[in-house]
Amino acid sequence: MFELIAFDADDTLWQNESLYVATLDRLKELLSPYSDANTVEARLFETEMRNLEYYGYGIKSFTLSMIETAVELSNHKLDGAEILSIVAFAKDMLTADVQLLDGVEEPIRTLARSHPLMIVTKGDLRDQQSKLARSGLGGNFRHVEIVSEKLVDTYERLLGKYKIEPPRFLMVGNSLKSDVLPVLALGAYAVYVPHHMTWAHEIVEKPPTGHRGFYELEELAQLPALVAELESNEH
Amino acid sequence: MFELIAFDADDTLWQNESLYVATLDRLKELLSPYSDANTVEARLFETEMRNLEYYGYGIKSFTLSMIETAVELSNHKLDGAEILSIVAFAKDMLTADVQLLDGVEEPIRTLARSHPLMIVTKGDLRDQQSKLARSGLGGNFRHVEIVSEKLVDTYERLLGKYKIEPPRFLMVGNSLKSDVLPVLALGAYAVYVPHHMTWAHEIVEKPPTGHRGFYELEELAQLPALVAELESNEH
Repeated sequence: MFELIAFDADDTLWQNESLYVATLDRLKELLSPYSDANTVEARLFETEMRNLEYYGYGIKSFTLSMIETAVELSNHKLDGAEILSIVAFAKDMLTADVQLLDGVEEPIRTLARSHPLMIVTKGDLRDQQSKLARSGLGGNFRHVEIVSEKLVDTYERLLGKYKIEPPRFLMVGNSLKSDVLPVLALGAYAVYVPHHMTWAHEIVEKPPTGHRGFYELEELAQLPALVAELESNEH
Repeated sequence: MFELIAFDADDTLWQNESLYVATLDRLKELLSPYSDANTVEARLFETEMRNLEYYGYGIKSFTLSMIETAVELSNHKLDGAEILSIVAFAKDMLTADVQLLDGVEEPIRTLARSHPLMIVTKGDLRDQQSKLARSGLGGNFRHVEIVSEKLVDTYERLLGKYKIEPPRFLMVGNSLKSDVLPVLALGAYAVYVPHHMTWAHEIVEKPPTGHRGFYELEELAQLPALVAELESNEH
């Protein structure tokens, strides 16, 4: 029944938001002579939102927004060593170990034996490719699509490219906004697997229980059974 | 004969290096209280090369390297306003008009009528997509591939993905290193269309005249005739 099962990567397959949260803590510490922690967090988020149209997603974008926020919050008093600290935060993020979420490997390997799998993720091209390579999961995915946004159009274009009808497509991810709602809008299936940390930008209302094509799982380990159930109901 | 004709984008379809060169001039001016112009240029290039493995290509990477170079060359004396100037350079680059190279539109439209065309380009995902949209050329390309490197492996993976044999593939671009040599190594065809500005990182030796599959044109306008000639020789 499903001709393609697609997965988000960040916080669906491996930890991601925790890396941003840990870096935000380092920035709060660095800027503590100039500003309180809540202000740093709020101003950085504002700067990121304002810069999204220029920079898009990912660590380099986050870093440019950290630098801009830091200069402003310090009233231009930030010194060169502090700037280089922020640059070092970026390099630490880009080389951090890829930490797979618990219980992710087995369901991915199981499903890869019965279905073509794809990754659909936002972010920096090079960073995402590097994380996939380091994750050890790469061999399970037939296609990898790194996209600049996850909108209805994006999924429509991907389904067109791979010649898949929406009822034959299942998307799995931790973001209702990016992985679930646009996929349901096309008439495809979406499985929401919440993660305990979600970036404020990705938070939206959940679709009502029972919405056609919408399923929620506590963990990815439950996915092969759900896929089997959906496919047997079809026949 | 050719089942897919692929084009590089930056400095093959539209101006790109000129934007980096103009921004480098702005950086030299900004740093003139701290350093002479030649040192700025040399140190920035060193920083970019050192950072390539972290950041990859594109404007955001260039900007992070400008910031790092500027802090170092100023002996950490760079002030907040100067940092924000560099951030503004980035935003100017990301929103600059897309300037098509002279005589590019017609051959692209001509070839699009007879062949599937593809873009293969490095750089920031969002920035390249945005430039293609603004270029007005988008409708001519069946596929767009934004890649983190253009190595033999990269082209091999793309040909596998689109199920094209190397002798049925032609790549067109201004970089011998990225658009020509790896393509020839696979046994495919490559057309080199030099641009008067080429980033130092992309400069390598030309293959010898007469190398199998290698052609050089002064301008893209000559491409439809070359394609027609190669295809008629085949039959």
